[in-house]
Order: sequence, then C-alpha cells, then structure tokens
Amino acid sequence: MKTATKKENTTPLTKIIGRIPGELVYVGKKEYQPAVFQLITYNDEKSQTFKTGNVQDLVSKIEENKVNWIDMDGLSDLVTIEKLTKHFNFHPMMSEDIVNTEHLPKVEDFGKYLFCTLKMLRVNHKTQLIEQEHLSLVLGSNVLFTFQEGMEGDVFGTIRDRIFANKGRVCKLRADYLFYLLVDAVIDNYYLVLESIREKVEMIEDDIIAHPSKNMMNNILALKKQLALIRKLVFPLDEELGKLIKEHPEYIHTSNLTYIHDAHDHVKHLINTFEAFREMLGGLMDLYMSNLSHTMNGVMKTLTVLSAIFIPLTFVAGIYGMNFENMPELKWQWGYFTLWAIMITLTTGMIVFFRRKKWF
Amino acid sequence: MKTATKKENTTPLTKIIGRIPGELVYVGKKEYQPAVFQLITYNDEKSQTFKTGNVQDLVSKIEENKVNWIDMDGLSDLVTIEKLTKHFNFHPMMSEDIVNTEHLPKVEDFGKYLFCTLKMLRVNHKTQLIEQEHLSLVLGSNVLFTFQEGMEGDVFGTIRDRIFANKGRVCKLRADYLFYLLVDAVIDNYYLVLESIREKVEMIEDDIIAHPSKNMMNNILALKKQLALIRKLVFPLDEELGKLIKEHPEYIHTSNLTYIHDAHDHVKHLINTFEAFREMLGGLMDLYMSNLSHTMNGVMKTLTVLSAIFIPLTFVAGIYGMNFENMPELKWQWGYFTLWAIMITLTTGMIVFFRRKKWF
Amino acid sequence: MKTATKKENTTPLTKIIGRIPGELVYVGKKEYQPAVFQLITYNDEKSQTFKTGNVQDLVSKIEENKVNWIDMDGLSDLVTIEKLTKHFNFHPMMSEDIVNTEHLPKVEDFGKYLFCTLKMLRVNHKTQLIEQEHLSLVLGSNVLFTFQEGMEGDVFGTIRDRIFANKGRVCKLRADYLFYLLVDAVIDNYYLVLESIREKVEMIEDDIIAHPSKNMMNNILALKKQLALIRKLVFPLDEELGKLIKEHPEYIHTSNLTYIHDAHDHVKHLINTFEAFREMLGGLMDLYMSNLSHTMNGVMKTLTVLSAIFIPLTFVAGIYGMNFENMPELKWQWGYFTLWAIMITLTTGMIVFFRRKKWF
Amino acid sequence: MKTATKKENTTPLTKIIGRIPGELVYVGKKEYQPAVFQLITYNDEKSQTFKTGNVQDLVSKIEENKVNWIDMDGLSDLVTIEKLTKHFNFHPMMSEDIVNTEHLPKVEDFGKYLFCTLKMLRVNHKTQLIEQEHLSLVLGSNVLFTFQEGMEGDVFGTIRDRIFANKGRVCKLRADYLFYLLVDAVIDNYYLVLESIREKVEMIEDDIIAHPSKNMMNNILALKKQLALIRKLVFPLDEELGKLIKEHPEYIHTSNLTYIHDAHDHVKHLINTFEAFREMLGGLMDLYMSNLSHTMNGVMKTLTVLSAIFIPLTFVAGIYGMNFENMPELKWQWGYFTLWAIMITLTTGMIVFFRRKKWF
Amino acid sequence: MKTATKKENTTPLTKIIGRIPGELVYVGKKEYQPAVFQLITYNDEKSQTFKTGNVQDLVSKIEENKVNWIDMDGLSDLVTIEKLTKHFNFHPMMSEDIVNTEHLPKVEDFGKYLFCTLKMLRVNHKTQLIEQEHLSLVLGSNVLFTFQEGMEGDVFGTIRDRIFANKGRVCKLRADYLFYLLVDAVIDNYYLVLESIREKVEMIEDDIIAHPSKNMMNNILALKKQLALIRKLVFPLDEELGKLIKEHPEYIHTSNLTYIHDAHDHVKHLINTFEAFREMLGGLMDLYMSNLSHTMNGVMKTLTVLSAIFIPLTFVAGIYGMNFENMPELKWQWGYFTLWAIMITLTTGMIVFFRRKKWF
Repeated sequence: MKTATKKENTTPLTKIIGRIPGELVYVGKKEYQPAVFQLITYNDEKSQTFKTGNVQDLVSKIEENKVNWIDMDGLSDLVTIEKLTKHFNFHPMMSEDIVNTEHLPKVEDFGKYLFCTLKMLRVNHKTQLIEQEHLSLVLGSNVLFTFQEGMEGDVFGTIRDRIFANKGRVCKLRADYLFYLLVDAVIDNYYLVLESIREKVEMIEDDIIAHPSKNMMNNILALKKQLALIRKLVFPLDEELGKLIKEHPEYIHTSNLTYIHDAHDHVKHLINTFEAFREMLGGLMDLYMSNLSHTMNGVMKTLTVLSAIFIPLTFVAGIYGMNFENMPELKWQWGYFTLWAIMITLTTGMIVFFRRKKWF
Repeated sequence: MKTATKKENTTPLTKIIGRIPGELVYVGKKEYQPAVFQLITYNDEKSQTFKTGNVQDLVSKIEENKVNWIDMDGLSDLVTIEKLTKHFNFHPMMSEDIVNTEHLPKVEDFGKYLFCTLKMLRVNHKTQLIEQEHLSLVLGSNVLFTFQEGMEGDVFGTIRDRIFANKGRVCKLRADYLFYLLVDAVIDNYYLVLESIREKVEMIEDDIIAHPSKNMMNNILALKKQLALIRKLVFPLDEELGKLIKEHPEYIHTSNLTYIHDAHDHVKHLINTFEAFREMLGGLMDLYMSNLSHTMNGVMKTLTVLSAIFIPLTFVAGIYGMNFENMPELKWQWGYFTLWAIMITLTTGMIVFFRRKKWF
Repeated sequence: MKTATKKENTTPLTKIIGRIPGELVYVGKKEYQPAVFQLITYNDEKSQTFKTGNVQDLVSKIEENKVNWIDMDGLSDLVTIEKLTKHFNFHPMMSEDIVNTEHLPKVEDFGKYLFCTLKMLRVNHKTQLIEQEHLSLVLGSNVLFTFQEGMEGDVFGTIRDRIFANKGRVCKLRADYLFYLLVDAVIDNYYLVLESIREKVEMIEDDIIAHPSKNMMNNILALKKQLALIRKLVFPLDEELGKLIKEHPEYIHTSNLTYIHDAHDHVKHLINTFEAFREMLGGLMDLYMSNLSHTMNGVMKTLTVLSAIFIPLTFVAGIYGMNFENMPELKWQWGYFTLWAIMITLTTGMIVFFRRKKWF
Repeated sequence: MKTATKKENTTPLTKIIGRIPGELVYVGKKEYQPAVFQLITYNDEKSQTFKTGNVQDLVSKIEENKVNWIDMDGLSDLVTIEKLTKHFNFHPMMSEDIVNTEHLPKVEDFGKYLFCTLKMLRVNHKTQLIEQEHLSLVLGSNVLFTFQEGMEGDVFGTIRDRIFANKGRVCKLRADYLFYLLVDAVIDNYYLVLESIREKVEMIEDDIIAHPSKNMMNNILALKKQLALIRKLVFPLDEELGKLIKEHPEYIHTSNLTYIHDAHDHVKHLINTFEAFREMLGGLMDLYMSNLSHTMNGVMKTLTVLSAIFIPLTFVAGIYGMNFENMPELKWQWGYFTLWAIMITLTTGMIVFFRRKKWF
Repeated sequence: MKTATKKENTTPLTKIIGRIPGELVYVGKKEYQPAVFQLITYNDEKSQTFKTGNVQDLVSKIEENKVNWIDMDGLSDLVTIEKLTKHFNFHPMMSEDIVNTEHLPKVEDFGKYLFCTLKMLRVNHKTQLIEQEHLSLVLGSNVLFTFQEGMEGDVFGTIRDRIFANKGRVCKLRADYLFYLLVDAVIDNYYLVLESIREKVEMIEDDIIAHPSKNMMNNILALKKQLALIRKLVFPLDEELGKLIKEHPEYIHTSNLTYIHDAHDHVKHLINTFEAFREMLGGLMDLYMSNLSHTMNGVMKTLTVLSAIFIPLTFVAGIYGMNFENMPELKWQWGYFTLWAIMITLTTGMIVFFRRKKWF
C-alpha cells in the first residue's frame, strides 16, 4: 500500500516550476511514446474508424456533418500535440492542462470548446494498487477530443462497441451526448475502486476484532492516504459539474442537461460513500485503541491477582525462615501443617474475592 | 447488527457499471416477480380500486376527471415497467432511477412529471435489523404513480383506508395532496426507526455504566454504521424538499405548498435528532474509554498498596533469615516478638497513609 | 440529571405516526384539562381582562379597535381548540402545530396570521431539572393569541402588570409590539437556564481538580445531553427570526422591526454562550482524562520506587540466608553490620536518584 | 488566570431579565459615578476642548459647522444618559445597548445615527488579567459620541493629541474619519492582548517540554477560556464590519470606505491569529498527553528491568536457603562462589538484552 | 525548526500599534538599506533596463507606449517610497500596506491602480527554515510596480531573462500579463516549500515506525506550526483571486482572465495539498500514540510473565526455607530433587500458557 501513495507524491515538481504558462510540459511518469490517434466518425446510419499518428491524415478524415470522436493516446509526444492544438485553435492554457497530468479535475468553457479534465482510476489486480490516468475531453460542435496518458486499455470499450454496432441512443444524438457517456463511464469506474477499498476496510475490521497487532495502525493510515488521494480527484468534480449545469455552455444541448444532472448525482453518491468510509476508518482507530486499553487492563489484572496471592504467602514463609532463637511456633508439633492450612484458606479467600470483582 | 450493514454494502456494483444510461437494470436484491398494479381512482364522491398485472388493462381503467393512484409492486419485472413508461412517456432517466434501488433520495422536475425517489425504512421485529425499500413517486396532473420494490406491506395502509371510506381532506383535494400524504407517511415512519436506535443507544449506555466489556465498542461502532446508513438516506431529502419548495413545479398547487413545508420541517427535525444521536454515541465512546482508564487506575492502586505493604515486610523477614554467626538480635529473648510489633506498626501506618490518599 | 433527558426522549411517537395531516393530536405529557382563556383588551387609555372557558363568550368580548390578547392554557382540550381555530379561520397546519408539543421552534407567515411556536424553559428549583413548555403565538391585525401547554405560571407576569397599570410603551403600541414583548420574555428566561448550567459546569470543574471520581464522566455526559436539548430548541430560533426580519410580514410594523432585530441579537448571544459551554465541557473531559493519566503515573512511580529500593535489598538478604557450608562472610565478626552499612548506603543512593528524577 | 474568566461569567443576569425593552439598565460592574463629558470641536483650522457633567452646557458648546466629538465616561449615571439621548433623539434600543455592557459587538444603522458598540481590551500589567470595557460609538452628520464604561484611561490618547496639535489628516476630514480612527485604535489594541496570550502559550510549551506537571492542563484550559472570551468579542466584528461595508450608510463618505476596509482586514488578521492559537493549544494538549504516556512507558520499563533482573536472582538465593537435609550443592567447596559466578553472568546477560531493546 | 516559527511570531507589534492610518511604518526585520529601483521597459520589439536609487531619474526613463516594470528593493527606505507614491498618486492605504510586511495577502482595486500584496516563500537550504519576503504588486495601465522587502534574490529570474531575450508571449502582451506572470511565479515557488515539508513528514513517519522517541511529538508540532504559518499566507490568496476574477477590474484585459483562473486553480491545488498534509500529521500523532500504547502493552506483558513464573517459585523456595522442627519433606531422601522436578514442570506449564495467549 505504501508504494501507491509514494508514487502519487513523487511528482517531478521541478518540471512544473520552471515552466512558462501555456508552454507544453509533460510531467507524467510514462516514457516517451509517439502519439496515436483513433478517429471514429458516426451518425445514425453508419460509423467508421481510422487510426493514424499523423495530424494531417487525421484532419483529412473528419466529416463535418457527422460526429467525430478523436481519441489520442500518449501525452509525452508534445510535438504532435502542438500540431494538433494549433490546427484546431486550442487556447494555450487548454493545451497546457491536457499534458499537465498533475492537474485536478476541472470543467472550463473556452468559448469555442468546452474543456474537461479528470482522472481515470483503476485497481491493478496484480499489485492491488490504485492507478490513475490523466484524461482530458474537448467538446466542439461536431467533434469530441479525448486525450489519454497512454496506459494500456481504457474504460470506453462498451461505448465503442455500441457505436460500431450502430445501436442505442448514442448514434442518434450528437457529440455532447458522447461527452456525457464518456464522463459517466469514468465515474462509474470509481465504484470499482470504492469496492476494493471497502474490502480492505472490512478486512482490517475483522483483523482488529480477532487479533490487534502493531502494524494494523499503519494499514489504517495507508488506507486513509488512499482515500485522501481519491477524494482529491473526485471532490472537485462535484463543484465542476455543478458549475457546468449552472453555466450551461452552448455545446451542451438543453435536452442533454438531464444526463449531466445524472452524472452529478453519481458523483454526489460517491462523495457520500467516501465520507462514510473516512468515518469508518476513524471508528476502526478508536476500536483499535480501545482494544489495546482493554488488553492492558487484562494484563494488569492478571499481574495484580498473582501478586495479591503470592506476595503475602511469601512473606509468611519468610517469617518462619527467620533464625531467632526464641520462636515458639517453630517448635510446635503441628506448626508447619497449621501454617499450610492458614495459607490455603487465605488463597481461597483471595481467589473468591477477585472472581467476584470479575478480575479473572 | 453486523449483517444489517453488510447487506447494505453488497450492492452488485458490476450490474451498474456496464449499463448504458437510460437502460433499465434492476440492481435490487429481490428475486424476479411479475409486477402487480393497484389502481385507485377517486374524487370527493366515490372511490374505486382495481388490481391487474397488465398495462393495457390498467390504462383502460384510468378516469381523466378523477385522481388516479397507480401503485406498482415489484421492480424486477423490467418488461412491464418498460411498457408502462413508454405508454406514459416517461423520460428515460426517470425510468432508470425507478428501478435503480441504489439511487439516493431526489426530487426532479421532468416537465411533464414531477419525479421523487426515496427509501421506506422499517425495523424488522424478528431480526431487529433496519430494512429499506426503494420507493419512487411520479406525479402528473391527475395521476400519481408509486413504484415499490415489492417487499411485503407498505406504510400507506391508513391513507388507502381513508380514500376507501371517502373521508378526510384527501378526497376533496387533487393528486398533489396525495403525493404529499405519501411522502409524509414515509417520513413519519422514520421516527419508528429512530425510536429503535434510541433504545439501543440507551441499552449500551446502561451497559457501559454497569460493566464495560470488550465488545461494547463493537456495538457502538455497529450503531454508528446504522446511523451513517440512515443519514445517507435522510440527508438528501432535506435539500431536495427545499429545492421542491423553491422551484415550485406546476403540478404542486400553491395552497398545498404549506404541506410540503410541513414535511420539510419533519425532515429537519429528524436530522437534528440524528445529529444528537451521533454526538451521544461519541459521548459513549469517551465514557467507555474513561471507564477503562478508571478501572486500570483502580487495579494499579491495589497492586501498589499490596506491594508497598508486603515488600518491606518480606525484606525484614529476609534479614533475620540470614545465617551470620554474629547477629545479636537473634539471641535476644524477645527479639521475635519485638519484630512482630514493629511489623504490625509499619503495616498500620501504611494502611492509614493509603487510606488518606484514597487509594482504597 | 438522568431523568431530565429521559423525559425528553419518551415522546409517544406512536401518537404522531398514525395521524392525518391537519388533524389535531395532543402529544404532550399533561393529563386532560379543560382549556381556560384569558382575554386582555387594552389601548392607551384603559385595559380590561376577562376569563372564560367558552369560545362563544370569548368572541363576544373582543373589541375591534383595541389590542386583544387571548391567552389559552391547556393544549389537551382539543374540542375547544377546534372550535376556536374554526371561528378564527386558522390554517389546519397551524392548528396542528399548536397542539404538537414536539414541534421545533418556527415562524411561519400564513397570510392572515403570523404563526410562531417556541419553547419556554424553566429550571425547577426543587428537582434542578430543566422543564420545557410548548408555546405558540398567533398574530393577527388587532389580536394576539398565545397557546400554553398549561403548566403552572408563565414568564409574562411583568408584561401583564404593565398593561394593567397602563404604563410603558406597550399600551401605546399595537399587537405586533406585544408579540415582540412576549417572544423577548421567553428568550430572556433562557438566560436563567444558562446560568443554572454554568453553575453545574463550574461545580464539575472544581470537583475534577479536587478529586476526580468515576461518575464525573457521567455527569459531564448528562450535562452534554442537556445542552444538546437546549440547543435543539434555541438554534432554530436564530434562523426563524432571521427569516422573519427578511420576509417582514405585513402584521409587523416597520418601526417595530428594530425590536425583532434586538430579540435576534439575544438569540445569537445565547447560541454563542452555548457553544462556549460545549467547548468547556470538552475541555473538562480532557482535563479529567489527563488527571486520570497523571494519577496513574504517580501510582506507577510509587510502585517502581518501592520495588527499586526493596527488591535488591531482599535479594541481598536472601543471599546470606543461603545454607552453603563454605560462605566466608557469614563467619566474619562484623559481617552482619557491614551488610547493614552497605544496604543503607544503597537505599540512600536510590532515594537521591529518584528524588532527582522527581519521581516522588 | 481563573479570576479573569470567573469575572466575565458573573454577569448579574437578574438585572437583565426583568427589564422592559428600551428601558435603561446598567449591568456593568462599576460603582455609581456621575457622568463626565469631554467635548472636542475641531476643523482644519483650530480645535477646542471643554469638560462638563451637564447636558445643557454640553449642547450649548456644539458648533454645527465643525466636527464635534462628545466623549462620555461612566455608564452608571443613567439619569444623565437619559437626558442626553432624549435631547439628541436616540432610538430607545440604541440607548439600551449603550448601557448594556453585556452586549456583543454590533454595527446598526438607525437612520439618523450610525451605532456601533464594541469592547476595549487591555492587559492589566499588575494582575496579568485581560480587562474589558464597553464602548459605544454614535455617528451623526457632524457629531460623534463615544460612551465609555468609565475605567481609567482609554486608547484614544494619540488621536486626541493629533487633534489638539491640529496635524494629520484627521483635522481635514469629517466625523466619519474620526469614527474610523477610534474603531481602528480599539482593534489595534487587541494586538497587545494577543501578544500577552502568545507569551503565555510559549511559556506553557516550554514548561511541558521541560517538566510536565499536573496543573499544566489547568493552565491550558484557563488560556482556552480566555481565548474563547476574546473570540466572542472579536468574531462578531468581522461580520458587522462586513455588513457596514456592504450597506454603506449615508454618514460614511465613499472615500472613507477604504479605511473601513482596512479595519476589516485587521479584524480578519486577528481572527486568523486566534484560530492559530486555538490550534496551538490543542497541539499542546496532545503534547502533554503524549509526554505523560511516554513518562509512563519509561517508568514501566524501569520497573520491568528491575524485576527481570532481581526476581530470578532472589529465587535462586531462596533455593539455597532451603533446609533440605540432602542438598548436595550446599556441601560443595566452591558452591557459593560458583553461584555468584552464575548470578553475575545472568545479570550481565539481562542488562545486555534490555539495552538492545533500548529499555534503558 | 523552533526558530522558524519563533521568528515569525516576534513581530514588533508596538511599531504597528501607535501608528496613524496611512502613515508609513516599516515593521520588517531588515536593517535600513537605501532603496534600489530596476526599471525594465519593453514592447514586442525591444527591451531596456535601467537601475537607479533616485525617483526623479526613474520617472524620466518611463516610456508611455511601452510596458514599464519598476522593481523596487528595500522597504526600509521610507523616504524614497514616500516620494515615489506621491509622484504616482498612490492611495495612502496602499502605501501603508506596501511597507507593512505583516499584512496578509490581498488584492484590492484602488481605481487608478490594482493593488496586490502577497508573500514569497523560500526554503533556506542551509538552515532548512522557511523564509518569507513581503511582495507588493501595483498594476497601472502601462506600468507595473513590484516592491520587495530586499532579501537576496527573487523568483523572477526566468521572467526577466525572457523579456531581455525578447521571446515568448510576455513581450507581445501588456502589463496585466506581466502581473499574472509574477504572481504565478510566486505561487509556483510554494510548491518547493511544499516539497520540503513533504520530505519532513515522510521522515517523521519512517522514524515513528522504526523507533518512536519522545521528541517525535515536538517535531510533529513544529511541522504543524509551519503548516499553520503557510496556510495563513496561502489561504487568503484563494479568496482574493476569486474576488479579482469576479470583480474583473479594468486593468486586467478580458483575454487574460483565463490566466488568472489558472493561478487560482494552482492556489486551490496548494490548499488541497496543505489540507492533506494536515490530516497526515494528525494521522502520525495517532500512530505515535498507538505505538506508545502498544509498547506499553509489551512491557507490561513481559513483567507479568516474569512475575507469574518466578513469584510462585520463590514462594515454594521460601516454604522449605522455614525452620519448623517438624517438616517431614525436609528429611526425605529425594525431597530436594522432587521439588526441582515440580518447579520445572510448573514453569514449563506457565510458558506454554502464555505462549498460547501470545504474550511473548
């Protein structure tokens, strides 16, 4: 778990600090990789797909009267991105945010385009770590750009399949509906991440009740950090989608606002659940601390009962181990056995007393 | 208590994640069950009721100039729901939320209909668990739909009785008043859930004061989780009803706004009480921890008093158990008895000292 | 203290839950008692008072061109209340809230009347418990109704005296000024409750510093619950008075708004003080816990010092109690006395050491 | 420190509770003292000062075309205040708040006058207590009243000197600028109070690190109470000055709003610092508790190491103190010395072991 | 770390308190130093730079149709500042805030100029302390003033280089863009401070897990104070930049608002990260406390196991050390060896028992 949060923290800040605003600097962790475009054009009659690494080729294939979805993979290829953004007249700040993989989620209306950046989260099933990938969406009148950091796979498989099969509402509606579909697919995926965290929380809870160990607290802290990371990525979405609904930019059709509302509801639900998890982790800490205290109480009671029984007995034995010349008891015929009788009575009394006090 | 919260958590997330927006997917925990409709039509003169499982039959019985209350039971029968929603022209997002039993409470104006979804909560008297049932209300001009998940019984018995008996204000007013009555009945029922939680809180409090045991903390945590669950279901109602009052959609008559205000007040009261319970649980934790500490103090004092009395005595006995050849005291006639006198004086002094310090 | 909060909690919820909106159900804890009206009519020239239990009689005595203050005692007499509310055309929801003694404070404009409900709080000097009484005010153009739950006495004595003596501003101004006077009298009385809580808080503080005992924590928790109860009754007033000022209903004259502002300021002051008390109680808990820890430290240090001194000595004594045949020290002439010298030196050293460490 | 907070709490509430709104009741702690007025009239050419205890005299000296600053000392002389307020037509609520020394800071526009009440805070250098004095400012078109509770000295010395010396901007500007100057002087003085609290906080911090003692926690709590008191007096100023800027009453010239902005900034800075202190005190509590725990750990380790070393040794000595007839070791020539060798080895081993565990 | 926060606190408050509003008082910690101006004039064709200490010289070099950046170093030279502010007609409150190095960040529109004050933060690599420097920016139509406290170096090196090299967007745009560039450079630098804090937090975390020591808590507190200091300097920026965007003063061109938005986003990101650090520090405290408790548990278990094993054995040895004349066991041939056998069995049993309980 440690590594997951470490990784998040080691942003090469130096890369960001020297930069000039609007200048493209890739701050992600991927090696250089030439960009690849996938263009999908469709209307309610048919759909076409085309793959290229060249901006010129890409532009030539765009069809004005259809929906064009341009999906680009690999943000480290700054040269290609610069070409693309110049051709489509992106605002410099928009281009900057596309490659700035450290940017928090945001929705901004740049007049000609609606810009939205957010993170895809995925649980890596091998390492159990939560991986994030920077995703930017740029919505124009009949075109939608998506920029992915370039990790393997994405969460848009089902949507592509529907477009290719030319079925469902997506083909009848315009680019703004596709925009909603993609954002919603990303948000839906957060639920899987949530699920994986829930499992860990429950595992820790069971562990604490069964046998509290020292590194339990470390695990709780590690989970807290993971939650903090996700919150950082999900919380801004609430505000940004709320703004989107209120400002209602021209490229979102009124009839589609209901869908954005729906995505907003999902984000709220997510945040609610995060808060519940946070509180649950706090509760687990309390449980752990109270269990520690309880164990301590038990240990101390054991020690005290032991001492209470044997210390007086040892004293009595000490008394008759003394070497005074005149100690009448020592010479009594049944002295030794009387003493045993007294000691056994005393011990029994003690045991009854402590049993009543529920000390053991 | 554990099971109650577990149950809530095990939503089949996978069902939700793959879905297409507006597609009907039932995510509840009920087995498939054909839908059953109960239509109640009434005005201030008479009321009629009719049960069917067929949408066509249902539609034929609707009377335009009366209030029509269509109550549907069983959200797993997606085919019938689809038919119904198509006939009445529901917005796809509305239909989706009707069957999405995981949806948080919300009120939304879809122009033609006012949509409201919330949860019925009930305490199962056998298991002492809190059960929830998804309920959606759709208000049109002279028609009110209610969609229930299909558990046994509901909280609308009294209202139905009044309509059948044709008495009370309900028969003189229109569908919007019925809408308020149903929402209010659901909210009123939350008070019973509250009552059951209050009983548990008080039971735990009495337990902590009488004899704090280790699993007390688990019980407090379990209650905290239950409260968190209910808060999740009640909190959004506050905001949503506030919105309803502010936006005042056309199907709510102005003269009925006062009633919505009243329901809103009840929700606020509920939330106030929830917050008080939450704080009380926090207080119980503090009480439990302080009692643990106090017990520990008592145990330690016992041990220390014991040690303080007997350790010096044992030392003295040890001294005169030594085998030095030249130990004058050993040969004194009254040495042994003098020692006893000294030891008894010492012990008495100790006891007085610790009594003064209130250590036992 | 326990009983005070218990009493609050045992609202007969079942009474509320079955009810129909607008139906009158008395949920208070008083036995049935026929309602009694006191009508005070006054203007700047003279004042008259009249007591009756009959609505018809009451109505006949109302004088249109004077201020009429109708004070009713006993909310359990639902028949009389129904008659009254019908005659004066109260909104059904207003009548419902008048008898619903569980309703939280609220101010609502019903067009024809301004409705305000709040709680009178009093410290019962015998039981030291805080008692609450439901109070509703209904302000019309020249009439003011007050509905009391019917406990002995109220907080309006001074105001009645002034009206009868026909002195002060109250006789020159209209019903809205009387409305303010009554609300202000209720709020002023909260200060006495506050004062009683302050005394308890200070008593507990002194106790904790002097001798922390186990039930101190229970007392703190009981006080916390009392504060929570009062907060529940005072907090809504802040919002409701704020709303009253903003909405400014027609029956409050503009020149009297300053007075409402003043009452609002008092409520804010109260809330400020409540918050300070809450924080103080939290501080007391911390103080109690830290004192427990400190005591524990002291106990442990005593035990350790004791052990450190006597355990080595006992060991030494044990050594020379051994029965080896060849133990040269035992045969030395001054062996025994040398040993004493060594033991005394050792003990002195130990004592100096622990004194330096400030362990006793 | 105790006394400081006690004093604050012992407001004679009974005095307030019986009062009639608008009636003048002095609730402060000062003995009766006849009021004294100091009138300062000035313009940019010259300034005059005049002292009297008589309202008639005072009025006759006011010059319409100059700035008149009327400073009154002694709020217990209600007769003189009544005369003054009647002559200048103060609103009754305004007069009430002038003498109500318990009133929280507030700014209110009474149309004819702008009313502002706040507290002067001073550190009494002898007792180290924080003293408060009630101050009200009433701003008219060419007149500014200041009402002080009547403690020795005030914080306006510098401002008076400047007016008498007829230098600085104050003489060129009108009464609203003087109003700002006085409010700002009061706020500036809060910094000195802050400084005194900062010193105490640092003293406690140093103490905790050096030698945590039991009454440290009491000191922290006492400081917390002082902070709570000051917050109560400073927090409302933030809101009230914000309101003043927003509402912009006619007696504040637009060109002077910048100054009010500046005072508002200072108040915000103060609040920021208060919050930082509060958090610091919380941190000190944590530090204290963790130091207690740490000390406890140390004590317990000492005890355990001691016991671990001597208890086994004592046991061994006990073995050879037994009186069995057949104990071969006792007869060995070097038995005793061998035993010593074994015991020394054992002890050394123990010491090495615990050193490694860093237990001492 | 201590010194860093101390330094911050020792503001010479007395300097501030006596001052007259609008009067220039330098409250910083630097020695007197004559002011030095650096004037940079540039347009998209060429740039010029000029250094002087004389206001007259400076003014003569300003070119109306170019961008003029006047950077002044050394706020202690009040005479020169006064001359400058008089020549350029600064509002007195603006001049006051320029030299008041204690002022919190703020943006204010003075009509003729836009005023912005904030802090530069730097990590001193030698002392590891965070140093702050007061910076004010004054934006006019074609002129931008920057006032620095006069520490060595600043964070504007890259921007100057770009202007001199006459490359980048900066030369084509006007003074408002330069204003944004400088503010952004300051904010970017906060990330380096953040980075240094992150390192310390991680160091402490590693330490706590490895070997918790007493001064760990002091370190956590010291870090908390540092964070509090930075928060105080960064938090107001969020609000102030938000206000700047909303009010949109005339000297910021609409096309440059996007850049201000961007700076605002960075500040939000910073605040998010601060909050995460704060929570992390809280988590570390919990970890430290729980580790202390855990260690204590371990120590107590060791002590109890030790006692449980040896105290009964010592008692047994004591028994047979008694000197009764009639003790049959003592005369048995194998008594001594039988006892050893019993003692070894007992001890083994104990060890097995405690192992099972996982006590060691």
